[in-house]
Amino acid sequence: MSASTATSYNPADQMPGCTFADVETARESVYRHLYPTPLHEYAALSELIGAQIYVKHENHHAVGAFKVRGGVNLSSTLSDHEREVGLYTASTGNHGQSIAFAGKVTGTRVCVAMPDGANPSKVAAIRRLGAEVVFQGGDFDEAREWAQSAAASGGARFIGPTDPELIAGVGTYTLEIMESLPDVEVIIVPVGAGSGAASVSLVAKTINPKVRVIAVQAERAPAIHRSWKAGRPVEAEMETAAEGIATRVAQENALRMICHSKTGIDDFVLVSEDELVDAARLYLEHIRNVAELAGAAPLAAAIRYRDQLAGAKVVLVLSGGNISMEKLRGIIDRDA
Amino acid sequence: MSASTATSYNPADQMPGCTFADVETARESVYRHLYPTPLHEYAALSELIGAQIYVKHENHHAVGAFKVRGGVNLSSTLSDHEREVGLYTASTGNHGQSIAFAGKVTGTRVCVAMPDGANPSKVAAIRRLGAEVVFQGGDFDEAREWAQSAAASGGARFIGPTDPELIAGVGTYTLEIMESLPDVEVIIVPVGAGSGAASVSLVAKTINPKVRVIAVQAERAPAIHRSWKAGRPVEAEMETAAEGIATRVAQENALRMICHSKTGIDDFVLVSEDELVDAARLYLEHIRNVAELAGAAPLAAAIRYRDQLAGAKVVLVLSGGNISMEKLRGIIDRDA
Repeated sequence: MSASTATSYNPADQMPGCTFADVETARESVYRHLYPTPLHEYAALSELIGAQIYVKHENHHAVGAFKVRGGVNLSSTLSDHEREVGLYTASTGNHGQSIAFAGKVTGTRVCVAMPDGANPSKVAAIRRLGAEVVFQGGDFDEAREWAQSAAASGGARFIGPTDPELIAGVGTYTLEIMESLPDVEVIIVPVGAGSGAASVSLVAKTINPKVRVIAVQAERAPAIHRSWKAGRPVEAEMETAAEGIATRVAQENALRMICHSKTGIDDFVLVSEDELVDAARLYLEHIRNVAELAGAAPLAAAIRYRDQLAGAKVVLVLSGGNISMEKLRGIIDRDA
Repeated sequence: MSASTATSYNPADQMPGCTFADVETARESVYRHLYPTPLHEYAALSELIGAQIYVKHENHHAVGAFKVRGGVNLSSTLSDHEREVGLYTASTGNHGQSIAFAGKVTGTRVCVAMPDGANPSKVAAIRRLGAEVVFQGGDFDEAREWAQSAAASGGARFIGPTDPELIAGVGTYTLEIMESLPDVEVIIVPVGAGSGAASVSLVAKTINPKVRVIAVQAERAPAIHRSWKAGRPVEAEMETAAEGIATRVAQENALRMICHSKTGIDDFVLVSEDELVDAARLYLEHIRNVAELAGAAPLAAAIRYRDQLAGAKVVLVLSGGNISMEKLRGIIDRDA
């Protein structure tokens, strides 16, 4: 989802994670501006996997992805002065769109630094939401450096990919899951920067420690998987087509939450590029929803784990649907 | 959406329409089993049309279309005995799926008569929802005749496309529109059997008589358009690829509501097949939602009416997303 997941941004200062209470507090600001999303049971997917399959539709937000919950929550905590001074962030697209949307609905000035040559349709989308776009540098890191220093010199806040208020806002979707389906047994969530997986495991396991949380990444971008195994940030190659889960280095605060002995994840699966495309195709064919490859990753993982999921109540987080028409065409043209 | 719209079913007995109070009463049963759907403002569509464009996402239901609200409402009014005796309906697909879903969540036996050679994936979808499928006859009308007589001989109820409880249930989406956007100026709704358009105009105009309701059909299936002009059911050719708005003869009770002097529709526009495909393509490209051609019709109408909508607050009813993969491929392959 977030372009900022595809970066080495990893601040030296130890940014905190968030608490269950932070997530509960976030509800009010989130629902002031966003709809809760549906959790649908789909018989066709249940039959395919041999389990009871529910899909959490984070692709149904107006900006098409779960991250907007975090941006809205963060923006809602600002003072009038802070709203006026504004927020700075860096993005190659979707993260910026999320913060821009939050800025629009909460009346907060937003400036998004983007690298030269950023996708024009994403630039246009951010501008339509009323945010300022500044082209700075040849890649994401240069844009981020500019945004951090512009924020510092203006007394404004720079928003990284896993700021605690973002994780807390994102956590509200898991509150919704636990309320709609209190006897859920397994939740499968994709990992990009980590705010999704960190908040799913925190919220689900605080409410019911028996819920099993499975994270998923692409085989071709396994940085968080390796970091989770090592218990510390480990860099890895990043070659997946699923930009929403293309992460080069783990964010330490989200990683700490994911690795937590009580409220961390239970398992972590890697899926192939082909499995991602197949899963996105199944979503289109069976439930007529556009899933970006990162959003389809939990379905790919469920198919891979079919044997151990047999008969269980499983929630797949369809985290977002922002995919290019070109990739969508490739998915449709693939034979099921 | 409903296969049963593509028929000459038009019972001689004068079936009533529904009242605003019926719609308000339907809320409770509808929300016991369904989520309200979001109404999103989309800056990209607003820019395209030069108005403030909001989309009512009836495609976000688990069965992918608005009709399920009607089925759920109707099933909820049944006695225990009636639930056991069950409901009979006839369908070539989507209407049957809607009634089957309603039967599943309300514990009502459902039997769907389908013509021989019905789309196997739709047959499977109905069966997965626990309904009985009976193949009867070579076309929809023969299947319907069988279902009506089976219902009569078993003391069970036959469900037609615009039974009053269906219109009342469907009307709940317009209550949601009026609550989310009290100052809406225009609502554009596709017309199949007519339960959508009849309930939109009843509900919107009862709450605010100034709201302008525009109905839309395909140029190649203009039966309701002609009937609305004539003030009585008029048959017409039915050659559109948009099966959800392919109607051969108007249902009298829905037509009476649409033609009502105070709570009827204000205008009726016909769009071409090319305009329907273009609109579905725009939905995919700009908001990453799969719209069936009938669901995309209001966007096509808004583009056609661009001049008279300038600056207005407009809601487009995206009534459903159930489209075949083959048609979806055609939409994607079309150059924007």
